[in-house]
Amino acid sequence: MSIHPVIMCGGAGTRLWPASDKACPKQFHRLISDKSVFQETVLRFCSADTGEAFAAPIIISNAAYADLIEAQLAEIGVEPCAILLEPAGKNTAAVAAMAARFIADHFPGGLGLLVPSDHFIGQPAVFINAVKEGAAIARTGFITTFGIAACRPETGFGYIQAGAPLEGPVSRVAAFREKPDAVTAARYLASGQYSWNAGIFLFDAETLLMELEAYAPDILLASSNALKAARVDATKIFLDPEIFATIRSTSIDYAVMEKTQRAAVYAPLDCAWSDIGTWAMIGDVSDRANLPEPVSISASDCLVHAADGVLVALVGVENLIVVADGRRVLVAARDKAQDVGQVVQALKERGLDTYL
Amino acid sequence: MSIHPVIMCGGAGTRLWPASDKACPKQFHRLISDKSVFQETVLRFCSADTGEAFAAPIIISNAAYADLIEAQLAEIGVEPCAILLEPAGKNTAAVAAMAARFIADHFPGGLGLLVPSDHFIGQPAVFINAVKEGAAIARTGFITTFGIAACRPETGFGYIQAGAPLEGPVSRVAAFREKPDAVTAARYLASGQYSWNAGIFLFDAETLLMELEAYAPDILLASSNALKAARVDATKIFLDPEIFATIRSTSIDYAVMEKTQRAAVYAPLDCAWSDIGTWAMIGDVSDRANLPEPVSISASDCLVHAADGVLVALVGVENLIVVADGRRVLVAARDKAQDVGQVVQALKERGLDTYL
Repeated sequence: MSIHPVIMCGGAGTRLWPASDKACPKQFHRLISDKSVFQETVLRFCSADTGEAFAAPIIISNAAYADLIEAQLAEIGVEPCAILLEPAGKNTAAVAAMAARFIADHFPGGLGLLVPSDHFIGQPAVFINAVKEGAAIARTGFITTFGIAACRPETGFGYIQAGAPLEGPVSRVAAFREKPDAVTAARYLASGQYSWNAGIFLFDAETLLMELEAYAPDILLASSNALKAARVDATKIFLDPEIFATIRSTSIDYAVMEKTQRAAVYAPLDCAWSDIGTWAMIGDVSDRANLPEPVSISASDCLVHAADGVLVALVGVENLIVVADGRRVLVAARDKAQDVGQVVQALKERGLDTYL
Repeated sequence: MSIHPVIMCGGAGTRLWPASDKACPKQFHRLISDKSVFQETVLRFCSADTGEAFAAPIIISNAAYADLIEAQLAEIGVEPCAILLEPAGKNTAAVAAMAARFIADHFPGGLGLLVPSDHFIGQPAVFINAVKEGAAIARTGFITTFGIAACRPETGFGYIQAGAPLEGPVSRVAAFREKPDAVTAARYLASGQYSWNAGIFLFDAETLLMELEAYAPDILLASSNALKAARVDATKIFLDPEIFATIRSTSIDYAVMEKTQRAAVYAPLDCAWSDIGTWAMIGDVSDRANLPEPVSISASDCLVHAADGVLVALVGVENLIVVADGRRVLVAARDKAQDVGQVVQALKERGLDTYL
């Protein structure tokens, strides 16, 4: 049985303003390389090495991004299995339910791999191998998460605590932990039992449906019905807006993972992962080239992300993030990158929506 | 006799890139207020208080800026006496010679006040009063310069050393001094005898012609001939390019002031003067508003100069200069503002002339 990558790309963050905005969120931008983060995510499952293990990707996103998705898939020459289009965001429980339903209906016995489209993975081969290893466990009826090797006492992520060993690097999940405070994060790091929850889930579709039935039957029912009543246009599947609107919005973590006895974790996964949630993180991993190249006079350790044709010149500055398109310029201290979302908030408050 | 302001606006600096460029140099930009620096300079001599003492301005610039000058004068409703247009820059000796020749020919007995168009004067009334006081001395045959009260050991300006007192704050010039090193600048400041050379000269036209005849007869002759052979189009006077090309390029300081026995200095002149030669200096005096107003999140002491419609957001930064138009962004440390010219140099070296 193949693994069906289910690529979630409906979100829209604010901390990567002005590159990421409502019209074109983070995952569709060329933040790290000459491909968008979404394209990189899709291609991770389509290389010559990985093609055999993975089926064509199932894309789940907001209907607003349908054209963007089709254009970006065409650009990299990938034919999707399906593009499920939501009229609005209803968080990951609904996404997981629709993915499980879709796979069970069309590919009986198939596995699904739910992955965010807006993460960076520096060592894709390590990641793909982990998924393949995890698949064996998933086939035995465990919903397998992937715990990223924690390398610092990060307070910005949730953590997964590993429990009883199952096989190799896979254990039962002892607990899912919310974003910790600094002291708790340090304790997690020291204990060696905790890894970062990257929001990646590998599951046998029938198993997940069963667990949804047990712990979130309302979400399963409404999601299944929205899918059943969907309007289909070639590979595009427009979920029924009226039924969809009734779906309870919650995460798959809350709805199922924290309750099920079938949660497993592959950890630690050390694949140079980053959620590239801030410009500072993008600075850490990006090798995107600006055109024209910025001019730098006695400047150091700055990240420049300029739209094509926009020239940035730096003089005597360090540790800055400079992002510029034709109408918007962000200049942020690298260690304050997490506060960029406040710019979006301020623009909203001032009614400057055209700059969002 | 009226004083004829002779406003020099042919120069093009590089340290105010990207606002100041070849197509539209510094003096024609709204750097400090909602009027350009050139317009502010012209208006200094046209207010109700000053109108009586001053004749209509004589503008001297590069022919390339003729349209810009006419448009900016029309905007503020000022009719120039004449606009002398040079085919190329030949420094201030030629400018002074043409100004003296023009005034002597058309306004016998008139005084000329040679002023740069790209300086800021925070207390124009103090400046205008000094000029009026200086006029009495100028009429007795002294070419009177104005020495700005030195308030710091600046190494970026030339200095004027005052000699034997003439009348009130006016003395003979003991010496003109080149830009000093830091130790020398400190000594100048401590001595109290030195003031900054702002490049402002007040003279009786006949006197200046006499001194040019004595010390730079070649410049006087060629300048007079270029003026005589000029093509006249209403107030625009296009100096003859062939004759103009033969003029020796040097400053009025070298050509005349350092040699003549008729040099006087009004000092110290304390009129909140700045040559606004760098973005840092503009930051010190500007009250120009950006539209839209920049968004500032935990940022302090930054100067933002954005083209209309360009939004700048600052997060967690301080003491920066951020200048942005649609295609060019400068981010500089405030204390490195004098290095901005190196950006222009780098762009030239890389052949990126479209960004100059």
